[in-house]
Amino acid sequence: MNMLINAPGDAVTESLHGLALSYPQLLRVHYQPDFIQRADTPVPGKVALVSGSGSGHEPLPTGFVGPGMLDAACPGPVFTSPTPDQLVAAAHAVDGKAGVIFVVKNYGGGVMNAEIAAELSDAEGITVGTILVNDDVTVSEASNRRGMGAAVLAMKIAGAAAEEGRPLEEVMTLGRQVVAQTRSMGVAMGWCAWPNARSAGRADSNTIELGVGIHGEPGRYQVARCSVDEIVAMMVEPILADLPFQSGDRILALVSGLGGTPLLELYLIFESLHRLLRKHSMIVQRQLVGNLITSLERPGCSITLLRLNDEFTALWDAPVNTPALHW
Amino acid sequence: MNMLINAPGDAVTESLHGLALSYPQLLRVHYQPDFIQRADTPVPGKVALVSGSGSGHEPLPTGFVGPGMLDAACPGPVFTSPTPDQLVAAAHAVDGKAGVIFVVKNYGGGVMNAEIAAELSDAEGITVGTILVNDDVTVSEASNRRGMGAAVLAMKIAGAAAEEGRPLEEVMTLGRQVVAQTRSMGVAMGWCAWPNARSAGRADSNTIELGVGIHGEPGRYQVARCSVDEIVAMMVEPILADLPFQSGDRILALVSGLGGTPLLELYLIFESLHRLLRKHSMIVQRQLVGNLITSLERPGCSITLLRLNDEFTALWDAPVNTPALHW
Repeated sequence: MNMLINAPGDAVTESLHGLALSYPQLLRVHYQPDFIQRADTPVPGKVALVSGSGSGHEPLPTGFVGPGMLDAACPGPVFTSPTPDQLVAAAHAVDGKAGVIFVVKNYGGGVMNAEIAAELSDAEGITVGTILVNDDVTVSEASNRRGMGAAVLAMKIAGAAAEEGRPLEEVMTLGRQVVAQTRSMGVAMGWCAWPNARSAGRADSNTIELGVGIHGEPGRYQVARCSVDEIVAMMVEPILADLPFQSGDRILALVSGLGGTPLLELYLIFESLHRLLRKHSMIVQRQLVGNLITSLERPGCSITLLRLNDEFTALWDAPVNTPALHW
Repeated sequence: MNMLINAPGDAVTESLHGLALSYPQLLRVHYQPDFIQRADTPVPGKVALVSGSGSGHEPLPTGFVGPGMLDAACPGPVFTSPTPDQLVAAAHAVDGKAGVIFVVKNYGGGVMNAEIAAELSDAEGITVGTILVNDDVTVSEASNRRGMGAAVLAMKIAGAAAEEGRPLEEVMTLGRQVVAQTRSMGVAMGWCAWPNARSAGRADSNTIELGVGIHGEPGRYQVARCSVDEIVAMMVEPILADLPFQSGDRILALVSGLGGTPLLELYLIFESLHRLLRKHSMIVQRQLVGNLITSLERPGCSITLLRLNDEFTALWDAPVNTPALHW
């Protein structure tokens, strides 16, 4: 247990407080129910984006709150979905009377709680839409696919569209199109731990876990240690085959560390990915490398590819000002 | 060994290439000797800031290259200083005929190589100044103190002064004043590993290593597991006593993860730090929380406090555009 905390039960709240203290101009924090709100919300007439997530994936979701991205984020306990009342309270707080969109990663509890929150908000007169994120290619049935890096891309691109004042239906459609054009896969070289959270660690740490989610799960496949070029190929080939991506496609490539892999290695992984995509005659037009969706301190990474079009690219390039993304 | 690399000997070069591919507008990379250069340098008439460092501390130093901070960075092998020829080549590349300042953390090899590089550059007609960073309070003799978080603060504040067009002497003095007003301490909850790099790991991982540097060393003291509030107090009290800081001081507080501690915990540590400083009637006016100076994937963090004055604050707030800092 390598944790720097006080009592486990207070950790999420204390961390939220620390985040709010770090960005006093940008963020406001609420407790019971817990959520982080962009300080200048509600923005009248703007569609509001809200996302919930278990904690332990930081900066997702709280680090993506700010102009050009999320209006609010609701962190649950570590690796556990937020409750409906968190989402409802956040929706109330940021509703600019143009509707609220929940960005929801496709995990059972999270989807259920978002559905309940949407019904409750709707009953109180808030129009709610949903962008469901399910970009993980390691599961064959699309309905069961887990949400991964597409969450960040959908929040950014839909967030930019909302910032432009586009209506709810259009922002929601755009976010869904982003998810539809995105595929991801994760790999882990070890495990993570947290009190009371499920920990899937095995004794044997001499294999690579290929096709992991973001909750410390084992991979779908276990493979022997090999080079990063080989690992990247094992991740990218299923991603390319699934959409399918084609030669000539313009790509936004996201390499996100799971938390315990040094930045040195993440850039090295991106170099390998870039080289492989060039070999497939694909054009990496935009990229993002860093710890965006993590699993506490787990070593590993996920690779996410989005097939760009001009609209996605323009909205990706639009200004954003959040703790984790700023340009 | 949880590494995502190809051959260890190629890792730093491949990673540099990946970094440059990630910021094609902002950075240019050179190989043999290796350095990263801000794309629009040399800027005529501007003092140039150059910093070298072993790799494995990312984003330091390469992630701090860009307008408002460093003009170039020279990464050595993992935990190993860059060679003089790297620093000389970088100085040549970014010299705007107003002089070059090396920002040097106080470690034997790094200081020696920077001195040689300064002499060589000087002989070639480049005026070179130095900002020596030695902010670690765990060593009693100031001359032996290791460089830690003050490196980031000095690069940012001196970098902003250079951007304003101030002359070499003034930029150097400012950077040295920042270091003189800064104190740091590090703590680790475990170890890190890299092929061919020294690894100080002990069998017993049930203690906290208090007073670590950034190269995977053991701490100066070993203490039993305890709460973050207790750990923060053990770090902050020696920091406050050393300068000494006083009640009423305005503070810039930096909490940097060592690489293997989740962001969730870093914000929680900052909350604890903020609370403790308030108790001492000190005012946290600026803060930075994240992975700024790391030791590969080591779990732990460092705390760095700078006593602010109006000039430091204004230069800290000045625009910066680098991979790791952007506002």
